[in-house]
Amino acid sequence: MTTIDEMKSRKSVRMFSAEPVSTEDRQTILECAFAAPTAGAQMLYSIIDITDQAIKLALAECCDGQGFIAQAPLVLLFLADCRRWLDAYELAGCEPRSPGLGDFYIAFCDALIAAQNTVVAAESLGLGSCYIGDVVEQPERVTALLGLDDYTFPATLVVYGHPTAQQLSRPKPARFAGQFLVHQNRYRRLSAEEQRAAFASRGQDFDSFVVPFYRRKYDSAFANEMNRGLVEYLKPFQG
Amino acid sequence: MTTIDEMKSRKSVRMFSAEPVSTEDRQTILECAFAAPTAGAQMLYSIIDITDQAIKLALAECCDGQGFIAQAPLVLLFLADCRRWLDAYELAGCEPRSPGLGDFYIAFCDALIAAQNTVVAAESLGLGSCYIGDVVEQPERVTALLGLDDYTFPATLVVYGHPTAQQLSRPKPARFAGQFLVHQNRYRRLSAEEQRAAFASRGQDFDSFVVPFYRRKYDSAFANEMNRGLVEYLKPFQG
Repeated sequence: MTTIDEMKSRKSVRMFSAEPVSTEDRQTILECAFAAPTAGAQMLYSIIDITDQAIKLALAECCDGQGFIAQAPLVLLFLADCRRWLDAYELAGCEPRSPGLGDFYIAFCDALIAAQNTVVAAESLGLGSCYIGDVVEQPERVTALLGLDDYTFPATLVVYGHPTAQQLSRPKPARFAGQFLVHQNRYRRLSAEEQRAAFASRGQDFDSFVVPFYRRKYDSAFANEMNRGLVEYLKPFQG
Repeated sequence: MTTIDEMKSRKSVRMFSAEPVSTEDRQTILECAFAAPTAGAQMLYSIIDITDQAIKLALAECCDGQGFIAQAPLVLLFLADCRRWLDAYELAGCEPRSPGLGDFYIAFCDALIAAQNTVVAAESLGLGSCYIGDVVEQPERVTALLGLDDYTFPATLVVYGHPTAQQLSRPKPARFAGQFLVHQNRYRRLSAEEQRAAFASRGQDFDSFVVPFYRRKYDSAFANEMNRGLVEYLKPFQG
């Protein structure tokens, strides 16, 4: 398969076989993170490789109780890290201001871009992966559990492993057609007609799909908790 | 080259030949964005394809005056978009709360992950690309220029094109060694010794490198403007 075919067919994998991720594959995955585009070559992230089973279990609990996280053979937390360079500046005798939201932004980009390179690398190695955005929930517990610094932020958690047969045969969720996602030169909101057509383009009936989805996702306890998590994590960057 | 070799050798390209990006390549790049991992298959982003030369020029000005942006044959803005689903929820008769910072977070992730798939796809097609984080500067001008909605955020701008020979022969900037980026189970700050060793690992002398870099990047007008930009863009998500 070509690089492009791999990206097109890749889907999230949440169940892994017992086979561990080899040392070589882990190293390749990390090297692809390091090779990713990064603002001014700063690599404004740190990666926490979570190998301690008790920590995996506690983290899975913090992440909306998604137990499969603790079963994954490779669990990497991508931290947006404004602390490492801040320490370097202080060590060099500069008198740096505290990191602001713009610094948070660049580090967040660096962390996500590096994470996606690892996901593409994993796919190419025959490994499955899944993003866990719920890692921003329960900020107090996660911060204590992983010793996070004020100027770091858990940009995303990714789990990797060998997919089970069931996961391999699972169909990839359908996407909206591009015409509803790409605009020319200016942003525009979709009309009611286009909204319905967008859901139809991925095989869903607007009227029967949207309300239950709203209740399950947007109007949910976990969404509220993610909103609270971000408020907490952004405080140090807001001075 | 394999997928992994492509990611390892990829470097940013800021100067492009006059050759346009073909319709087929543009389509492949967009399809790789659409195929990217996305929270709950929501695709919480929109892409603005900037083809109008006057808009390219104005945008380049907003992005710290980086003229090469206006010379790029393909210019895609990846918007974190909390508006499209909000409109869908309203159309379906839900009474949705305003998007919060957690919603912003998920949409930001979706947008960046999709953007990095396009960068990997471009590399595989023999096209160069470059991220422009400066797109968060001058929020008032950018918002007016591109008609951005309150609940969208310019997560990143990416430019693509055929690399010039000079760009192809440019060495890829060195990376920090992995030992300074990856921690086991808990975050930890680097010691003074490790900080020096980290810069040495990419061939730089800490004492002569860090202070000038600090002045050029962190203690700069553009960094302050990025901090201000994020404050402005986050306001609607903070209620």
